[in-house]
Amino acid sequence: MRLSPRHPRYASLRVRAGLAVALREGLVVPEGLIAQGRGEAFDYLLGERTSASARRAERAAAHWLWSAEHPVISVNGNVAALAAAEIARIVRACPRIGVEVNLFHRTPRRVRLVARSLRAAGVERVLGVHPTARIPGLPSDRARVDRNGIYRADVCLVPLEDGDRASALRARGQRVISIDLNPLSRTSRTADLPIVDEVRRALDHIARDLRGLSRRRAPRIGAPFDAGAALADALRTVGRNLERAARAPATRRASPR
Amino acid sequence: MRLSPRHPRYASLRVRAGLAVALREGLVVPEGLIAQGRGEAFDYLLGERTSASARRAERAAAHWLWSAEHPVISVNGNVAALAAAEIARIVRACPRIGVEVNLFHRTPRRVRLVARSLRAAGVERVLGVHPTARIPGLPSDRARVDRNGIYRADVCLVPLEDGDRASALRARGQRVISIDLNPLSRTSRTADLPIVDEVRRALDHIARDLRGLSRRRAPRIGAPFDAGAALADALRTVGRNLERAARAPATRRASPR
Repeated sequence: MRLSPRHPRYASLRVRAGLAVALREGLVVPEGLIAQGRGEAFDYLLGERTSASARRAERAAAHWLWSAEHPVISVNGNVAALAAAEIARIVRACPRIGVEVNLFHRTPRRVRLVARSLRAAGVERVLGVHPTARIPGLPSDRARVDRNGIYRADVCLVPLEDGDRASALRARGQRVISIDLNPLSRTSRTADLPIVDEVRRALDHIARDLRGLSRRRAPRIGAPFDAGAALADALRTVGRNLERAARAPATRRASPR
Repeated sequence: MRLSPRHPRYASLRVRAGLAVALREGLVVPEGLIAQGRGEAFDYLLGERTSASARRAERAAAHWLWSAEHPVISVNGNVAALAAAEIARIVRACPRIGVEVNLFHRTPRRVRLVARSLRAAGVERVLGVHPTARIPGLPSDRARVDRNGIYRADVCLVPLEDGDRASALRARGQRVISIDLNPLSRTSRTADLPIVDEVRRALDHIARDLRGLSRRRAPRIGAPFDAGAALADALRTVGRNLERAARAPATRRASPR
């Protein structure tokens, strides 16, 4: 099916078509498409744009990454399919940031596909292709990490994460920055710095902020962040949008014939 | 990966695994998995159970189907993968109800797969395999229908529908019953009788109600239905759940080191 750029939902239809291709290639798994749908629903409820509160979280995230000793971004299939270019821009702005493949549904082939899409976007060094360590207490393949990557990261950016790993990282004293459109998810509630925004918008903003920090050689000092307030803000945004929508539809009576 | 029945999300993980299989077979398309995810998010916000208001809508839907001259259920890939058994139960309770394959992403192979899964569940007569009419004003393949099915239906049950077709059917004076977890979707807003509930729960309830109507040989009189009030109820339920959730997370301060 050809997509018309004039379709009201052109942008999201294009993303969906891209994920369908990534699925056929094996980069994305079926569960990843379902997760994308869950995100779409929350994005819709958030008004499909970055809230002021999410933008503040993104700025704080850039500061945390900038001031960390060993910052690492964890990349799964959906992130690679959706935002490899944004990740490459982040690394260009701050080459100290490591990029590591980390998959829940891990196969050697998928690892290669994720690494390849990152390299094609311009990320030169991809960690996690041959894991050299394990995060204790995590039963899934998400535990398999790089000793020089996620394993020793002090700040870990985990876009589209599952709650289990966010907890496991925190339990090790690592700072977790999440990107997740669901403000109620275990990931969002577990993260030290939850960003409630669409992954490409969020990573694009972080890349821009890091470029700014790099240009003005900003001091490497992270700012505190109020995670609870950020989640409450997101829930309020959803609530406001729902109220607005509830007022919109006209009450209509219908009978069966 | 093996699923443990003790996992807190066992039921939804099982559904997801089933859809992944249906995708491999070709019954479900990638876009169908994304749609499933969107539904999951709304179901989560609705508390993952049938509200009193949705139950009333399901009872009204059973009455509308029962009292219609030519009631038809439209079945797409997701519906066939998720709820073929429930549809078979509906038809057993009220054999006057026609069942028609109708696909947005239509190929002869997918039509065969949907028809086959319906027959395997016990639906003897499946319409729409060889379309004999068109619904005017619909550009997609959804327009291709059976002259003795959707084309002349007075009441049409469209689970997991797209908004365009719901409008096209209504424009022809046909009564539309939708099943859609998003109370804000164009489908829900367009339908004469929107059911805001998960498709299997909704169809199971309708089958039960039809069995009751059939047993007591109920008179074939449909009841009026207030669509606007039903949607407002659903939005209120989501709002209440969000408020509850907003109160739950403890405010937490974190700094980057």
